[in-house]
Amino acid sequence: MLSPFDDEYFMKKALEEAESAYEKGEIPVGVVVVIKDKIIARGHNLTETLNDVTAHAEMQAITAAANYLGGKYLQNCTMYITLEPCQMCAGALYWSQISKIVFAAEDAQRGYRKFGVQLHPKTEVKTGIMEEEASSLLKRFFIEKRNLN
Amino acid sequence: MLSPFDDEYFMKKALEEAESAYEKGEIPVGVVVVIKDKIIARGHNLTETLNDVTAHAEMQAITAAANYLGGKYLQNCTMYITLEPCQMCAGALYWSQISKIVFAAEDAQRGYRKFGVQLHPKTEVKTGIMEEEASSLLKRFFIEKRNLN
Repeated sequence: MLSPFDDEYFMKKALEEAESAYEKGEIPVGVVVVIKDKIIARGHNLTETLNDVTAHAEMQAITAAANYLGGKYLQNCTMYITLEPCQMCAGALYWSQISKIVFAAEDAQRGYRKFGVQLHPKTEVKTGIMEEEASSLLKRFFIEKRNLN
Repeated sequence: MLSPFDDEYFMKKALEEAESAYEKGEIPVGVVVVIKDKIIARGHNLTETLNDVTAHAEMQAITAAANYLGGKYLQNCTMYITLEPCQMCAGALYWSQISKIVFAAEDAQRGYRKFGVQLHPKTEVKTGIMEEEASSLLKRFFIEKRNLN
């Protein structure tokens, strides 16, 4: 029997988080953290709401997942992210020793891969899941923002 | 008249924060954020206490300084840090657009400069203030930790 819990299933959940950010006027990025097909943490960008540059979706979800697990290392966890992580978030993922990250849209300007930021050697990376949906939400946000200014 | 508020003065305050971390069994790293000779935020490493890899001294102080200022960008601020920031913290400092960072000890293994992590073009960097004091506290911590295991 096919499992309903594939990468698309969980990336859709991350996209729902990104939409929550969008509705708050935040750059729409969302994540979920999954262990054994169960979502143990969610997060969306809250930098404007919290007035805090560190309040990226990934940072909140790393903290929340560690709280859930009772330990600071995210072993056997997969993080689904709607946008390629920035330097800060990739650096946090390095410390978390997370097993896998899956991200949707690339970030050619601010993404961690541009700068040589290292993930942990234990971390597997998968890209391109629902890239178009995640990108189009981001584009919609920036076009609307430009039209308002 | 000479001002008592020089780099050594504020790095000593950051070292006091590092000593607070040391007393809690945390890797001893401390920071203060200064604007016009006034300390507006303090922080020390709390990753073990909070069970959270994101709880580095710098991350807490960025959040605290933004709260104090009522805005998320740390313009006209200087952060004094007892150890070269890691990838995550340098990435957060990038987003904060902080005016200046001053750090004491180098971190050849985990410091941001090894990986090519970018600070903001607006950020000035100064190194080597009280390097020996900061390094010797870190060495003491790791020697004691090794002897306990």
